[in-house]
Amino acid sequence: MLIVGERINTSRKGIEPAVRSRDLEFINNEVVLQVAAGAGMIDVNAGTLLEGEPEALAWLTQVAQAEANVPLCLDSPNPLALSAALKVHKGKALINSISGEEERYRAIIPLAKEYQAAVVALTMDNNGMPTDAMGRLNVARKLIQRLNADGIDLSDIYIDPLVQPIGSDSNQGAAVLGTISVIKAEYPDVHVICGLSNISYGLPIRRLLNRTFLAMCVTMGLDGVICDPLDRDMMKAIYASAALVGKDEFCMGYINAFREQRLD
Amino acid sequence: MLIVGERINTSRKGIEPAVRSRDLEFINNEVVLQVAAGAGMIDVNAGTLLEGEPEALAWLTQVAQAEANVPLCLDSPNPLALSAALKVHKGKALINSISGEEERYRAIIPLAKEYQAAVVALTMDNNGMPTDAMGRLNVARKLIQRLNADGIDLSDIYIDPLVQPIGSDSNQGAAVLGTISVIKAEYPDVHVICGLSNISYGLPIRRLLNRTFLAMCVTMGLDGVICDPLDRDMMKAIYASAALVGKDEFCMGYINAFREQRLD
Repeated sequence: MLIVGERINTSRKGIEPAVRSRDLEFINNEVVLQVAAGAGMIDVNAGTLLEGEPEALAWLTQVAQAEANVPLCLDSPNPLALSAALKVHKGKALINSISGEEERYRAIIPLAKEYQAAVVALTMDNNGMPTDAMGRLNVARKLIQRLNADGIDLSDIYIDPLVQPIGSDSNQGAAVLGTISVIKAEYPDVHVICGLSNISYGLPIRRLLNRTFLAMCVTMGLDGVICDPLDRDMMKAIYASAALVGKDEFCMGYINAFREQRLD
Repeated sequence: MLIVGERINTSRKGIEPAVRSRDLEFINNEVVLQVAAGAGMIDVNAGTLLEGEPEALAWLTQVAQAEANVPLCLDSPNPLALSAALKVHKGKALINSISGEEERYRAIIPLAKEYQAAVVALTMDNNGMPTDAMGRLNVARKLIQRLNADGIDLSDIYIDPLVQPIGSDSNQGAAVLGTISVIKAEYPDVHVICGLSNISYGLPIRRLLNRTFLAMCVTMGLDGVICDPLDRDMMKAIYASAALVGKDEFCMGYINAFREQRLD
């Protein structure tokens, strides 16, 4: 299970000032905490800086990779920002994100190819964001085929089925679960990754819904999650889920997490 | 989701003395607490009383149904005990359990028919307890067909895929999840019910594994669970799971649970 730490995002409280002032210590701390908590990749997003985004994303990339030897999830729809960050990124980056929207696709695919980056592919296109599993699957299948034809390995594709709130449509959970299941059945080498928190938007006790949904998505084959690894209850659900679906041989990951007091 | 409260079982601490002494107040309290916590059915098990089991199970049945207007899950492999309890049970009982073991099947099927009871059918037979999904499915399919041919409605059959510990075989979680999924796809009218706690046997922080596995099983279509409804974290996972798979219209069950402070 790939855990992408989501904390370094300028739309989160406290992050934008730190990025604007190039506060090395603050960012280093966010990197170290997330990796120590179990993140295998760090998301960096400087989207709120607008025209300053490319320079900020490149700075974040250098700072984060100087502190910890992990690949980054470069989180921007802006080709200029992605290009600036990819230039200084070491190893295989994950571009977050491409979609079936024509303009966005054409702008980002050359960057993915030039830097041999993996891509998060959102299940949306020029017709918008489908609300049911069938619609998501249609977009996902087209994206996978097109990305693969354009030279992106199946194992470098991370489908994001775009979680929508169950509070406004009770079927949105089942729609995402169904999408994950079919994608993994049809394309075992393709990854599926989600941000989870949108599922609970507008409902009380959101973290309960988020971590329960994580377990459900893992059941269907989810193999990546964008989350806050400092949310201990979420991480406990991740350790438990891996053990329960047989992706944690002899439950050693779970037992080690217990020994390291991560399950308290 | 049918929640069967499992607390009135003479193998649990404190229950056997209460049953032996016919402690009405104690048993009433266990019934009231479980129904208030969300149980829609109460399991009664007096197995440790051996030759006293039939009389004790009949007493428990009368006491529990006098206190709360819920059906009972009569939990015994002993036809004499089941018969004594069924004689005094009001409404449709759930016999827990029948299996593909020939002697057990032949002893219990006449009781189910005579009293129009529903049955929990364990995925085991004269060849033992299968360890993989395929083996469980083969036993389950044969049992469903035989029970149905013997006059038990599909909607009165509750398959129990017999949860085994992941601590001794990492594949046991996936085997149960796969079994639930296929049974519900092939026989939508048949129910699937589990006791969950065996999944975590031998591992630390068992309740985390148990409630995470509950969410996973619900994802696959589980519609009954035998558990302790006084385990608040388990009940929170049950409320969240129902909302997330779209079995809780407008999330009203979840929201009401929040309002009743059941999600704290």
